[in-house]
Amino acid sequence: MRILLSNDDGYFAPGIEHLARALGSLAEITVVAPERDRSGASNSLTLDRPLSLRKTANGFYYVNGTPTDCVHLAVTGMLDTLPDMVVSGINHGANMGDDTVYSGTVAAATEGFLLGIPSLAISLASRHGVHFETAAQVARELVESLLARPLGEPMLLNVNVPDVPYEQLQGRALTRLGKRHKAEPVVRAQTPRQETVYWVGAAGAAQDSGEGTDFHAVANNRVSLTPLQIDLTHTAQMGRWQRWLQS
Amino acid sequence: MRILLSNDDGYFAPGIEHLARALGSLAEITVVAPERDRSGASNSLTLDRPLSLRKTANGFYYVNGTPTDCVHLAVTGMLDTLPDMVVSGINHGANMGDDTVYSGTVAAATEGFLLGIPSLAISLASRHGVHFETAAQVARELVESLLARPLGEPMLLNVNVPDVPYEQLQGRALTRLGKRHKAEPVVRAQTPRQETVYWVGAAGAAQDSGEGTDFHAVANNRVSLTPLQIDLTHTAQMGRWQRWLQS
Amino acid sequence: MRILLSNDDGYFAPGIEHLARALGSLAEITVVAPERDRSGASNSLTLDRPLSLRKTANGFYYVNGTPTDCVHLAVTGMLDTLPDMVVSGINHGANMGDDTVYSGTVAAATEGFLLGIPSLAISLASRHGVHFETAAQVARELVESLLARPLGEPMLLNVNVPDVPYEQLQGRALTRLGKRHKAEPVVRAQTPRQETVYWVGAAGAAQDSGEGTDFHAVANNRVSLTPLQIDLTHTAQMGRWQRWLQS
Amino acid sequence: MRILLSNDDGYFAPGIEHLARALGSLAEITVVAPERDRSGASNSLTLDRPLSLRKTANGFYYVNGTPTDCVHLAVTGMLDTLPDMVVSGINHGANMGDDTVYSGTVAAATEGFLLGIPSLAISLASRHGVHFETAAQVARELVESLLARPLGEPMLLNVNVPDVPYEQLQGRALTRLGKRHKAEPVVRAQTPRQETVYWVGAAGAAQDSGEGTDFHAVANNRVSLTPLQIDLTHTAQMGRWQRWLQS
Repeated sequence: MRILLSNDDGYFAPGIEHLARALGSLAEITVVAPERDRSGASNSLTLDRPLSLRKTANGFYYVNGTPTDCVHLAVTGMLDTLPDMVVSGINHGANMGDDTVYSGTVAAATEGFLLGIPSLAISLASRHGVHFETAAQVARELVESLLARPLGEPMLLNVNVPDVPYEQLQGRALTRLGKRHKAEPVVRAQTPRQETVYWVGAAGAAQDSGEGTDFHAVANNRVSLTPLQIDLTHTAQMGRWQRWLQS
Repeated sequence: MRILLSNDDGYFAPGIEHLARALGSLAEITVVAPERDRSGASNSLTLDRPLSLRKTANGFYYVNGTPTDCVHLAVTGMLDTLPDMVVSGINHGANMGDDTVYSGTVAAATEGFLLGIPSLAISLASRHGVHFETAAQVARELVESLLARPLGEPMLLNVNVPDVPYEQLQGRALTRLGKRHKAEPVVRAQTPRQETVYWVGAAGAAQDSGEGTDFHAVANNRVSLTPLQIDLTHTAQMGRWQRWLQS
Repeated sequence: MRILLSNDDGYFAPGIEHLARALGSLAEITVVAPERDRSGASNSLTLDRPLSLRKTANGFYYVNGTPTDCVHLAVTGMLDTLPDMVVSGINHGANMGDDTVYSGTVAAATEGFLLGIPSLAISLASRHGVHFETAAQVARELVESLLARPLGEPMLLNVNVPDVPYEQLQGRALTRLGKRHKAEPVVRAQTPRQETVYWVGAAGAAQDSGEGTDFHAVANNRVSLTPLQIDLTHTAQMGRWQRWLQS
Repeated sequence: MRILLSNDDGYFAPGIEHLARALGSLAEITVVAPERDRSGASNSLTLDRPLSLRKTANGFYYVNGTPTDCVHLAVTGMLDTLPDMVVSGINHGANMGDDTVYSGTVAAATEGFLLGIPSLAISLASRHGVHFETAAQVARELVESLLARPLGEPMLLNVNVPDVPYEQLQGRALTRLGKRHKAEPVVRAQTPRQETVYWVGAAGAAQDSGEGTDFHAVANNRVSLTPLQIDLTHTAQMGRWQRWLQS
């Protein structure tokens, strides 16, 4: 068994070290992660320059590119055979609701999925990032089960883990992505050279965070498991468009 | 009426100039686009530095960020009222099938949609980009109709236009996103300093390009209209996961 | 005659357009400049990725690299013969005293000099950049004279022009680089995500700005001409080091 | 005593670890280095975005900026008192002759010098980088002597160490910077998307490498010590320019 690990926080982030340790006894681990923090990278792919692949003293590989680049390069240019699984994380911070669309953590797993590999993204749902070992333990259990009893179809699973000691977890919940209110406006600032610049503001508060959502599960100390797909076609709106086009 | 234009090819790209000219008589136009080519940027958002907003001699604004940054900054920090529509493009090259997940053009429209604005991405489906005026005319007709007769619910529409003279178009087709085969492997190269580097390879050939897909429509010289949504939850797979969790 | 123009403000900057117009009747002009503002780039050279060369509608070329990259690529990969001169600018803002060490404008000219071409950097010495036409006229006169009566040895000339109407100029002065006091400290700021970041502060006030310096010339409305060389060896300190080593 | 260390290869590079170990018993060490390889950065300074300062598990700090940024930020925004010395390196590869103008290693030391601190850049003069411990030992001896017996004026010293076992060193030589022939031309390549791109070519061969130069010293297994200054004024050419202006 071989598992490919990546993330968007960079190869040096505590989350990916926890993950490598936790999964190391289940399979042969290869780590290929960005050389610097690429949070917010979404599925961006580097097309205007080539990528370098370098190795650290501890055997991790890093790439001067995005999370998607890392998985793409590892699978199509470096590994001799397809890995049995791609695991991305442990992200420092939640990836829930609409935010998944911006997430580099989820993007790395998505690239694995697009390349035909069962893939899983895992995030520690808190700003301060205390209990990485909880998320590592959750990752280990899930991966162990998925290797032993595969799902039986292509899979892309988004996992968010409450930042509490393992024994305080209240089980797992299968969830849908919630929704947020609109993001906060950009924040203006002045540079020392008197130029106006704009910081992207904070994410909005949860809007749809009711029962069944990832927000709700995590708020209740449950591990949130959201199966994802990547077909953005809005099938439910087809009829309305058909009528609009004909009118 | 006010329309916000953006793209991922950069504020200087011919596609956005065509678009600005074509829509200029329908509404007040504001252009806010990336300062350089950001193709492949997906929904990436710049969180680690602030953004600058500058204006060119011809009145276009440009931002040292991603397509998503441009729309986000324009809507939450620059325009006094919400625009009536966001239009992104005209992209040089198709955005169909799985590629939409990497597209900065679609991402700019997605950000408009997430901010509550009817949004549309438009791409000229060819490598060489000859008939931008065809796509501009298609954009003009669609936008005119949508302003006159709104859809009646939140909308995010992905439009791909064949690269032929306008009179050779064979109508419009409402489509679903097709699927591609896996991407080509990365391509190795040597630098003059004898380092190995890797270029991301070309996109795979179309796999699901049958009747009803965007690939099929464009191959038959029809304008492809694909309504998109952004909820990645894999609802159809929930039952299988439920059983997996319980076994 | 052929003159290569570059700058560090980007190919779209007003300064380089003024320069191209002013020198257009003296020689064939080729513009190769950075695709975005690279102020502060110094002599940095891009080694970790290849460069692209693109052409705008008005015939200017731009490169996704530094000012040094632009001149290097133009001379060693694009032009069939060595240009007769490299002119860099017109920079928006002075390049005097110790600041020349950080300047991308001076760096572009330095690269020309290192490649064996008579080279000149020209800057409009003010924050607001009003009288570009004054600097353009100064550039035209200097270049015309230098083409007609070459200096007779390798040359790298740093020119700073007061931001006043041409008729208010009080002649030219041959100057040495002045010195500044230390830069202002970095300025702390908070991001919307509560992280501390640091802006590089403003340049220090002039320290050695007495008679004979570039600071003094410009303050007296004279065009400052400073011949530069690039050998940083501290010849005058050799004796002291010799004694230090022997003690 | 406190010594500030930086480099241009990145905080994770073997050279800076060797340096930190070698100097650790002489003084309190603070490491502030770039978060990624910034070779070729020259004196570039980041003006268009703020810098972040982060700390690794081993106590090193890293900055998302250039070598110059690192020293500037450390001295003006982080350390409570001026360090007694700035040491930059151990660079993987020589920094001799004209190349010093592009070097980020030398630039970090230059920034220290500009801020009033005795500064030293040290490089291991080989492509393969085998004997870092030799350079570390040389650094230790030099720094120890300089702290015990300061030079007595502002100093900026560029040190290049042959890549041989310490006992094979043939002493130290006080040198001037040599000169290289022009750089090799850029190297054309094709991207997988059929675009032409250009790699900056290799440095030229040594041209002035005679007795007394850094090239000569290193070729003879001697440690090269070159005192640098930063005033680029070409004093020797002033007379010629004076005559040119008057003619």
